[in-house]
Amino acid sequence: MKFTHESLPQRITFASGEAATAVKAEVEALGASKVMLIASDREKKLADPIAEVLPVALRHDEVVMHVPVQVADRARDAAAAAKVDVLVSVGGGSTTGLAKAVALAAGLPIVAVPTTYAGSEATNVWGLTDGETKTTGVDPKVLPASIVYDATLLTTLPGDMTVASGLNALAHCVDAMWGPRMDPIDQAMAQEAIRGLAAGLPRVKADSASVEGIEQTLYGAYLAAVAFASAGSGMHHKICHVLGGMFDLPHAQTHAVVLPYVLAFNAPNAPEAERRIAAAFGSATATEGLRALRERLDAPRALKDYGLPEDGVAKAVAPMLAAIPANNPTPVTDENLTALLRAAWEGAEL
Amino acid sequence: MKFTHESLPQRITFASGEAATAVKAEVEALGASKVMLIASDREKKLADPIAEVLPVALRHDEVVMHVPVQVADRARDAAAAAKVDVLVSVGGGSTTGLAKAVALAAGLPIVAVPTTYAGSEATNVWGLTDGETKTTGVDPKVLPASIVYDATLLTTLPGDMTVASGLNALAHCVDAMWGPRMDPIDQAMAQEAIRGLAAGLPRVKADSASVEGIEQTLYGAYLAAVAFASAGSGMHHKICHVLGGMFDLPHAQTHAVVLPYVLAFNAPNAPEAERRIAAAFGSATATEGLRALRERLDAPRALKDYGLPEDGVAKAVAPMLAAIPANNPTPVTDENLTALLRAAWEGAEL
Repeated sequence: MKFTHESLPQRITFASGEAATAVKAEVEALGASKVMLIASDREKKLADPIAEVLPVALRHDEVVMHVPVQVADRARDAAAAAKVDVLVSVGGGSTTGLAKAVALAAGLPIVAVPTTYAGSEATNVWGLTDGETKTTGVDPKVLPASIVYDATLLTTLPGDMTVASGLNALAHCVDAMWGPRMDPIDQAMAQEAIRGLAAGLPRVKADSASVEGIEQTLYGAYLAAVAFASAGSGMHHKICHVLGGMFDLPHAQTHAVVLPYVLAFNAPNAPEAERRIAAAFGSATATEGLRALRERLDAPRALKDYGLPEDGVAKAVAPMLAAIPANNPTPVTDENLTALLRAAWEGAEL
Repeated sequence: MKFTHESLPQRITFASGEAATAVKAEVEALGASKVMLIASDREKKLADPIAEVLPVALRHDEVVMHVPVQVADRARDAAAAAKVDVLVSVGGGSTTGLAKAVALAAGLPIVAVPTTYAGSEATNVWGLTDGETKTTGVDPKVLPASIVYDATLLTTLPGDMTVASGLNALAHCVDAMWGPRMDPIDQAMAQEAIRGLAAGLPRVKADSASVEGIEQTLYGAYLAAVAFASAGSGMHHKICHVLGGMFDLPHAQTHAVVLPYVLAFNAPNAPEAERRIAAAFGSATATEGLRALRERLDAPRALKDYGLPEDGVAKAVAPMLAAIPANNPTPVTDENLTALLRAAWEGAEL
């Protein structure tokens, strides 16, 4: 047992139907009185009731995916001009990301109110894009001081988006089991996260407005992000990153398809991960638990259905081999990685 | 699902046999260069190799149980006179407690090197005594910035002390399952902590120098303290606190005896705690798992063996009823609490 684990300071509130009250209390606890409320037009309806009870000095709705630097600069300038003392973000990963960009420059605390299962609110990672170039970094300043999870804000999220986003969170958990900085605390959180996701996702699949299902899924997605940020990207995320970059495949579906193949690839040489994932699913084996959940969710099955050309497999292997962490439980070779990708391409039975 | 959880900022390092190197790295990471090293005479041998590699400006060995204010004042004065910029504590709860008392006054960061399973290093709780009066408080300043766990420092701890201290940590876990501020994150950490303790304690019982056993026990004790500090004292700790105060019973043995009775009392009305504790033990029921572990450890069985008079049961009920949290899973009455205490007094079979 040899590791260093860093636990990060954050308040997490679960309060379904009470986002406005809870955010107000968090803003007051921070001693703040001039709120910059960040929410896109799409999130306006969700943000309005929260705005109503806050001392809002500025509303900002220019939210763009991947946080372009120009968008970040305009938000930073607006924050400075309005002399705000706290950032409240209501939205998904892009909205949280913009709040982080402002916090990085201004050192202001963030109260994050997530409306998807992205998990960015639980990490100290920021990202900015300048044209095609994405820069990411880690800074304690961008970790939201407080998160308010209100499941009722996600009842209008379409079921298939929930499934895709939830399987993305599940990939965080599985990959955290063998990420380069993995430790038993990360594994325990990832295990608990899988339990939450496995309990929540089928309920949300059956009824996209199920508050209890959304609560469990949010809870799982939160812990998944904490565990993944601590453990770092493992084999699964390296594979998906290369596929996304080379072939512009859809993010969530790529993760959903690839995950069971990576799990089957690593599980035989990762007994602790195998034990924990199986325990979390309540299944005989990890692979069996994931298969059963994927069936209930009617999850995506083959990369060929999402735009990966057949000859893409051969092209992707080299950059993946270079990126997969050296501590991966099963040693990766040109041959076994090609077989894995080929299976994921055609959606082979596991 | 309705709760607020606070996660606290702390670095945790497990590095068996490498305390000196690890502490040096942590001190450097804090940017500190004038160390106050706190360790009692009893802990001198453990502290010396650590002192050797550090820029020690001051060694302080006046460590007294329960941190009397006069002792704290002398340590604070010494720290100020030597202009130290970091506190390194090597020792058990009293040593960590003294470092916290200095940190509370001086705002200095602590690097804690625990040599018992007390768990104080993982909390933001401080305590001071003035004669008979104990004052405790919560302050972010006293949470050690960094903990270094080195199992080899505990290989000389006698086996029976490990068992007593380990069962005390187990009581933190069980009580965290229904503490007044309990949330699922606390429960998940307590579950993982039980798993560690149940894996580690029998190994340390069999071989008090088992580094692997000590590592698992330290890991469990750490997570137990985190979960318990977050959830707050439940029924078990309220009972033990009253017994300790009224009859001066030995701390660890009291906890060890009372725990299975409280678990049996609450488990039927705490299905989530029951499920998690049983899963952590890998047993059919929570009570069965605790019983099996206690048998392997030859744990204390009856309060009458540790100084509780038979008529003490009747005297203790009223103050306990006043102290047990209202959210206790099984409603507590004069009658059922008397029966519980009576059973614990005589060591009745469960």
